[in-house]
Amino acid sequence: MATAWARAGHEVVLGSRRPGDARGRAELSDALAGGVRVADPASAVAGAEVVVNATPGTASVSALASAGAAALTGKVLLDVGVGFDEEGGLSHPGESLGEEIQRTFPRARVVKTLCTVDRELMVAPGSLQGPSTVFLSGDDADAKGTAGRLLADLGWPADSVLDLGGITTARGQEHYALLFMGIAEAIGSYGFGIRVVPPAAAG
Amino acid sequence: MATAWARAGHEVVLGSRRPGDARGRAELSDALAGGVRVADPASAVAGAEVVVNATPGTASVSALASAGAAALTGKVLLDVGVGFDEEGGLSHPGESLGEEIQRTFPRARVVKTLCTVDRELMVAPGSLQGPSTVFLSGDDADAKGTAGRLLADLGWPADSVLDLGGITTARGQEHYALLFMGIAEAIGSYGFGIRVVPPAAAG
Repeated sequence: MATAWARAGHEVVLGSRRPGDARGRAELSDALAGGVRVADPASAVAGAEVVVNATPGTASVSALASAGAAALTGKVLLDVGVGFDEEGGLSHPGESLGEEIQRTFPRARVVKTLCTVDRELMVAPGSLQGPSTVFLSGDDADAKGTAGRLLADLGWPADSVLDLGGITTARGQEHYALLFMGIAEAIGSYGFGIRVVPPAAAG
Repeated sequence: MATAWARAGHEVVLGSRRPGDARGRAELSDALAGGVRVADPASAVAGAEVVVNATPGTASVSALASAGAAALTGKVLLDVGVGFDEEGGLSHPGESLGEEIQRTFPRARVVKTLCTVDRELMVAPGSLQGPSTVFLSGDDADAKGTAGRLLADLGWPADSVLDLGGITTARGQEHYALLFMGIAEAIGSYGFGIRVVPPAAAG
């Protein structure tokens, strides 16, 4: 995502606990070559208009806290994470990571999206046999508008993005992870999408 | 489903706690006119080759138990139920109703299916703007073959049915219910499906 957004003209800074680490920078060579910078989490968040959480769901709240709750105030926070427990079940079975993040950082404007697709498909929605659907969940309409434009920059056309409503609907996106895993196992690939097929009468 | 299967030539018996109840029979008039019969649960199961659980997920195990566990031995048990708690969350958040039924009636051959679509779509898959996907989960391959033929009788072509694997994969089908509710709210209809869109390279 960092590389794709940099290519689309955005200034992208990755937050890292070890921003100078040589091995980490080697792994990020493609992104760095594309203009992406690396900084400590607080610096990365301080100058950002939009913060993206792409950490494992079980580590997300502490990772975001390391950037400082105050720094998130008013910012759009795109959350694409899902958390699993050690048995492969959801780490947030009764609610969602998106809701936990919104509750923990109430002044951030959280938008849950992209957690229903694999990371390669996130930036290559045209790689499928046909169009598929991604979802938005969040309490702030402007923040969802920003999220929609950022999805467009990754290649997701507006008619492939379905706004589900408030942040509580993140639960549906995250709970889908178990069906996602089942489908991936059945077809032998993570690189698939799902498309919402409406009733014929809905035109 | 009863009416649709009767129309396809199957002998269908609905299990009811009050099989002679006039009001219940009035509500079932279409099914009865189509040749569907009504009997007490034990009688309905006793003569059946295939048993279908279409009761609310919170009541399914007791409903099936009322027919007698012994009567389910060796039978294909199609489970299309999903259970919700009073807050709209899943009644089986840590596993699935399908697994609970299989564990409770270990000699039944449980197949989970159709719980990802609304009851009207179950019998009218052609009512959408395009093809959609339904899923099978179960430990018995022959039972899943029977399930596939019964789905075909409802109008689901073989290439719209995806076998996810064992009964533990019922979890994915049931957990999808929360995304289903979110999509239904967003598009204003329960009459939609989802289609698995594979990678282009997969042909």
